[in-house]
Amino acid sequence: MNRARAEAVLREARVDVVVGTTYANVFYLTGYVGFSQRLMPTTQVYAVARADRLDEPVLIAPIGDLDMHAQLPAAIGRLRPYGHFYVHLGEEERDPELLRYREIVSSDPGGSAAQALLDELGALPPASRIALDERGISAEVRDAVRARFGERVADGAALLDRVRMVKTPEEIRRLEASALVMERSIAAAIAAAREGVSESEMARVFDTSTIASGSAPYFTVIAFGERSALPNAVPTTGRRLRRGDQIRFDVGCYTEMYGSDISRTAVLGEPSPKVRAYYGAILAGEERMLEVMRPGITARDVFHEAMRATQEAGIPHYERHHVGHGVGLDVYDLPIIAPASEAALEPGMVFEIETPYYEVGFGGVQVEDTVVITDAGCRRLTRSARELVVIA
Amino acid sequence: MNRARAEAVLREARVDVVVGTTYANVFYLTGYVGFSQRLMPTTQVYAVARADRLDEPVLIAPIGDLDMHAQLPAAIGRLRPYGHFYVHLGEEERDPELLRYREIVSSDPGGSAAQALLDELGALPPASRIALDERGISAEVRDAVRARFGERVADGAALLDRVRMVKTPEEIRRLEASALVMERSIAAAIAAAREGVSESEMARVFDTSTIASGSAPYFTVIAFGERSALPNAVPTTGRRLRRGDQIRFDVGCYTEMYGSDISRTAVLGEPSPKVRAYYGAILAGEERMLEVMRPGITARDVFHEAMRATQEAGIPHYERHHVGHGVGLDVYDLPIIAPASEAALEPGMVFEIETPYYEVGFGGVQVEDTVVITDAGCRRLTRSARELVVIA
Repeated sequence: MNRARAEAVLREARVDVVVGTTYANVFYLTGYVGFSQRLMPTTQVYAVARADRLDEPVLIAPIGDLDMHAQLPAAIGRLRPYGHFYVHLGEEERDPELLRYREIVSSDPGGSAAQALLDELGALPPASRIALDERGISAEVRDAVRARFGERVADGAALLDRVRMVKTPEEIRRLEASALVMERSIAAAIAAAREGVSESEMARVFDTSTIASGSAPYFTVIAFGERSALPNAVPTTGRRLRRGDQIRFDVGCYTEMYGSDISRTAVLGEPSPKVRAYYGAILAGEERMLEVMRPGITARDVFHEAMRATQEAGIPHYERHHVGHGVGLDVYDLPIIAPASEAALEPGMVFEIETPYYEVGFGGVQVEDTVVITDAGCRRLTRSARELVVIA
Repeated sequence: MNRARAEAVLREARVDVVVGTTYANVFYLTGYVGFSQRLMPTTQVYAVARADRLDEPVLIAPIGDLDMHAQLPAAIGRLRPYGHFYVHLGEEERDPELLRYREIVSSDPGGSAAQALLDELGALPPASRIALDERGISAEVRDAVRARFGERVADGAALLDRVRMVKTPEEIRRLEASALVMERSIAAAIAAAREGVSESEMARVFDTSTIASGSAPYFTVIAFGERSALPNAVPTTGRRLRRGDQIRFDVGCYTEMYGSDISRTAVLGEPSPKVRAYYGAILAGEERMLEVMRPGITARDVFHEAMRATQEAGIPHYERHHVGHGVGLDVYDLPIIAPASEAALEPGMVFEIETPYYEVGFGGVQVEDTVVITDAGCRRLTRSARELVVIA
């Protein structure tokens, strides 16, 4: 967690307590990973963090999930379990992980998530102002909290979005690792490119490589030829690679909880003049972003720079609603590099930058890389060449 | 979609219109797969279905996502896109998928999800009663719908849960396919069991097999020896297999959108008498469920039968909060086989049945299978032997 930033954001918003409720926000505030929360999205897990004691959050989670806490010794805060779960406590155990687990499950807390949250919020200093992350909480519990605390409660997801915009060194390390996994998997898939291979065969090579890296596949857009015009193309068994096809990769995974969203374009055989020209234009757009991204510039200005560069470099009719976005615990973190975004870039922000072009009847070309804003400018976290890949 | 059941459930609840908002419920009502909805969980996608016209739902989705609609020719209903997205319409295109996409993206609808939903609900016959799935809609849009339509709106997720409890033949086919993928992956992982292999190495073999089957890994609990007592054990690089260790698998994937949740227990070498005895007891509990599950019996009665059988067969102190759950578009569908569930079983319900036992200081033993309720009883969809696996 970026604690200094969290304190500043909460202070500025005059918030005394923030309640994280999504998988990502609970992890961000406590280091806890809600296994059941991901498996059964209705599972309620909350992190209640006082602005003046961010290192002592309260974690409200179902007791049946809390072996995850025993498995995550770095998770911080006090546990407030709820519900029932049966684990027999048998013979002596010396393994530290299982000793922690034994201690956690020796209670049978009962009760519900709603009751646990209302209790914890009720025990706060009177008049505390509460920012309640509205995205992961059930509608019923949100309604109950608002009914009980009235004006003292406001939605809080946007505040946590703002805190999470600026990454810590550890977050940057994980984002870099996630991007590198995608680059390796793209290389593995390109190595499998040959006439007749199907999109889905190539996607399996890709996903297998991602898993071999210890990461979790998240989205794998691999599309050939005319199908590369479909922004969210699902790999098919039917479309097989032919000479002259472009292959558009737009892919992401999760590595140690952190996301990535990387793109490359390859061609089997000699690229058409149009593919070469248009790819050159979008690469010029990305290149321009790498030149101008630095602390202080607004996302809007970066957007316009990229648009102009892409248009001037060979796609005069180029249009786009955004040319990049933050990346972190979610693949789309803030800020978005879009015409309406007045956010000024800050050191430690990490972006996926991209200038994709889709044309029905032609296909798509795309290049997308991870960059971190530094004190002086920006630094690319990806390492592979960004040129159009020509497969002999 | 189980249309007859949907009509009956909505009629009984006196609901005129149901609005699905989660990834699963939108798919259920329309056949549409919200790519961005999965990628960016804040993305708003809605299926607005009149109870008297369930085959003509309205699909509200961001225009940038709607190439998914072109890729899913079987999706039903009318499109109501919102937002902006730029795709150039170039040379002529004869591919039917891209022709559909060209038609979809030739409009630039603008506006927001909230506006689109308020418009569609406003165009309904006056006094229509609206069931709004509260689980996938943003808090802001839910608040806006309630403010505008007041008493006419109620939360609707529970109604859709109830509809989805009874599966169609096509859903059963997919659930069977999903379970079989897990059985194959368990077999692949067991084939890789040998002294010194780590939990995470075995998990990679497992996930690679799942991907080779064209399915998406979802959760992979593979735990050795004492760690098998952790219900949600995350495979580690540190714990390596030793002779005498039990290996507990609790694993699930998604196949054609449908989930699975299967468990087996294996031992490298000779199982201890306690592992043999306790595994025998939990298998007797599962066996008892296979004997008693039939139309008309309540989930509560199934629960008590399984508990008693497990206790009598060798774990007298056996306790458990549930011994199974529905499975479908979510890995936890309703009903849950639990002491408080009065739901009566019906033909077409599909369950994961399980009698797991966890003991700190000993480990865990588990067996879990997919069963469908038939007219006369139940039928197992899994095919592998359910006995304790002994690896020589």
